[in-house]
Amino acid sequence: MEPDKVDVVAEHADILQVGARNVQNFPLLRRVGDAGKPVLLKRGMATTIQEWLLSAEYVLARGNPNVILCERGIRTFEASTRFTLDLNAVPAVKTALASACPGRSEPRNGPLAVRRSRWPWPGSRPAPTGSSSRCIRDPEEALSDGPQSLKPERFAALMQRVRKIARAMDRDL
Amino acid sequence: MEPDKVDVVAEHADILQVGARNVQNFPLLRRVGDAGKPVLLKRGMATTIQEWLLSAEYVLARGNPNVILCERGIRTFEASTRFTLDLNAVPAVKTALASACPGRSEPRNGPLAVRRSRWPWPGSRPAPTGSSSRCIRDPEEALSDGPQSLKPERFAALMQRVRKIARAMDRDL
Amino acid sequence: MEPDKVDVVAEHADILQVGARNVQNFPLLRRVGDAGKPVLLKRGMATTIQEWLLSAEYVLARGNPNVILCERGIRTFEASTRFTLDLNAVPAVKTALASACPGRSEPRNGPLAVRRSRWPWPGSRPAPTGSSSRCIRDPEEALSDGPQSLKPERFAALMQRVRKIARAMDRDL
Amino acid sequence: MEPDKVDVVAEHADILQVGARNVQNFPLLRRVGDAGKPVLLKRGMATTIQEWLLSAEYVLARGNPNVILCERGIRTFEASTRFTLDLNAVPAVKTALASACPGRSEPRNGPLAVRRSRWPWPGSRPAPTGSSSRCIRDPEEALSDGPQSLKPERFAALMQRVRKIARAMDRDL
Repeated sequence: MEPDKVDVVAEHADILQVGARNVQNFPLLRRVGDAGKPVLLKRGMATTIQEWLLSAEYVLARGNPNVILCERGIRTFEASTRFTLDLNAVPAVKTALASACPGRSEPRNGPLAVRRSRWPWPGSRPAPTGSSSRCIRDPEEALSDGPQSLKPERFAALMQRVRKIARAMDRDL
Repeated sequence: MEPDKVDVVAEHADILQVGARNVQNFPLLRRVGDAGKPVLLKRGMATTIQEWLLSAEYVLARGNPNVILCERGIRTFEASTRFTLDLNAVPAVKTALASACPGRSEPRNGPLAVRRSRWPWPGSRPAPTGSSSRCIRDPEEALSDGPQSLKPERFAALMQRVRKIARAMDRDL
Repeated sequence: MEPDKVDVVAEHADILQVGARNVQNFPLLRRVGDAGKPVLLKRGMATTIQEWLLSAEYVLARGNPNVILCERGIRTFEASTRFTLDLNAVPAVKTALASACPGRSEPRNGPLAVRRSRWPWPGSRPAPTGSSSRCIRDPEEALSDGPQSLKPERFAALMQRVRKIARAMDRDL
Repeated sequence: MEPDKVDVVAEHADILQVGARNVQNFPLLRRVGDAGKPVLLKRGMATTIQEWLLSAEYVLARGNPNVILCERGIRTFEASTRFTLDLNAVPAVKTALASACPGRSEPRNGPLAVRRSRWPWPGSRPAPTGSSSRCIRDPEEALSDGPQSLKPERFAALMQRVRKIARAMDRDL
C-alpha cells in the first residue's frame, strides 16, 4: 500500500492491515497511525520481537492505541513448511507489553485481539485475547490468498471447536 | 553419551534419550537402536524435518520401532526466546510418517508419544499422540535442567488442564 | 523514502538507494524505476536471492536497466556479528543474470557495479564488477551510519590495496 | 567417528578432522584431544562462534594446543546455495583468540592454519594464517565428497593465484 492511499482505504475498511513486507516501512506506519482505524501489524519474516514492537510504536506515537500484532511465521532454515510460526512470540510480546504499557493489556482491546467487524459471520465479534487470534478469510470473496482461506461453513465449524477449547481453558469468546 | 556406554544406561533406564547435539551421531544411533529400549530422539537445533526422520531411520533399521520424535525448538534469528518451537513440525512429521510407514502412526505407540514409566506420578501413562507431548522433569530429582523442570504438584495441575482440553477436542489421554 | 518523494530526491542525487527494509516495497520500486537514475537495491535481511532478483525486475520493468544489487548481510542465528555477509550471493546472482539477461552482465554497467559519481575522491569511477563492490561513506558528511563510514584518507589507502589485489587477479579498476 | 576408534585413526593420519555434526560430541572431542595429533574442528551448521570456541576448549583442555578451526558454512534461510559461508567468523574468532589466549595467535601454528602434510603436492606446507584456509581434497583418492574435490592440476593453478594475491597483500605463504 502506498502511504498516500491510506486515506482512501481507511474510508472503506474497518481495519488497516500492514503486511509483513511493510513492517518497517516507517512513512506508511505513520500514515496508518493517523487514519483513525485499528491497525493489524503483521510481523515481518525476519523481524525480531523487539523491532516489531518498535514498529508498533510508530502507530501508537500518532495517538492510535488500537494496534493488533499478528504473528504470521518467520523465516528459518526449515524450508519444507514455508514459514515457522513463532508461538513463543505471543507470551514474549505480552510480557513486554505488560511491563511497558500495562494499560494496553486488557482482554478485549489488547494488541493481540482481532476485531473482525468486516466479516459477516456469527463470529464477527472481538476475538479472545490472552492468546493470539487466527487471521481468516472467505475464499469466495478473498482478493488475495484465496487458497489459504476458509469457507464460511468451515469457519463456523472451526469457531465451534475453538469455543469448546476456550471453555475448557476457562476463557470466554 | 558415548556409544559404548549405551548398554549400561539401557540396563537402568526405561527409555533412552538422544539429545539434540547427537541427532546425527550415527554410531550412537546404531547402538541405541540395538539396545531394545524406546528411544526419544530430540530434533537438532538446525536439523531439517527430513534429516530428523533420516536419523530416526538409523534406529528403526536396527529393528527397534519405538522411536519417539521430540521437537525441542530450532535455532533462528530470534534470540530473545533462545529457541523457536517449530510447531509445524508436528503435522509435517505425521504427514511424512503416514505416507511412509502407516503402521507406526497409531495412537498410543506412535513416534510422537512419550512413555513416561520412569516418572512416579499419576500421569505416568502413555501420553496422547495426535499431538506432540511435553517433556517433563521432577526438579528435585533432575540431574540436569532443574530450573526448567516442573514440580509434581504443578505437573498434576498441568495434567488436569491438559485432560480438559483433550476432552474438548474429543481426545482421550 | 516515501514513493512521492522519489522525484525530489532524484533531482539532487546521482543514484537512488533502496534500503534493505524497502526491498519489497513495490510502489517505491516502481517510482524509483521511473526516476531515470541508477538504482542501488540493497538485499533485505531475509530476502532470498530469487526474491531480490524479482524486486530488481520491478525497476527493470519500468525501462530502467541500471540496477545495482548490493549484498549487505543477511540475518542468521549468529548474533555476535550482527549480520552474516552472504558472499555466495555474488556468484549466485551472476549466474542467474548470465542465463536470464546476458546483456546486463558486461563489466562496467552490470548489476553489481557501483557508480560513485557522488563521491569527490580519486576513486569516483565505476567500480570493478566481476566482484561485488563495497559501499563507502565519508563519515564527516554522512547523514547516517557515520560510525561505519570511512574517512577519505583511509578510503584512499583501501583503494590502493584493492588496486593491488585486482592487479594480482588480472583485473582492472 | 566413534570415540573408541580415535586411536586407530590417529596411528595412520597426520591430522584428525572432527566434522560439523560432531562439533558438540564432547566424548569424541576429549578422545581426540588425547590423541596427540592436530585436530581440524569444523564449525557445526548451527554452532555459534562462541559455542565453537568452547568446543575447541575440550581439545585444548587435554593438553593439545593444535586445534584448527574450519568455517564451513552455516545454515540460514537461503537454501539456494546450501550453506552460507560466514566470513565474519574469521575476524571474530581471531579477535576472541587474541584476547583470550594470545600465545595461540602466532602466524604459522595458530588455530586457523591448515597443516596439509597428508597431501602429496607442492603446496603441502603450513597454509597462511591471518586468513582462513581452504580445505582441499584430491578427487581421485577422496573417500568422500569427491565431486567437491579439486584435481592436483587445478590445485596447483589455485595455489599460484593465491600466492599472487598473498604477495599483493604483503603476506607470505
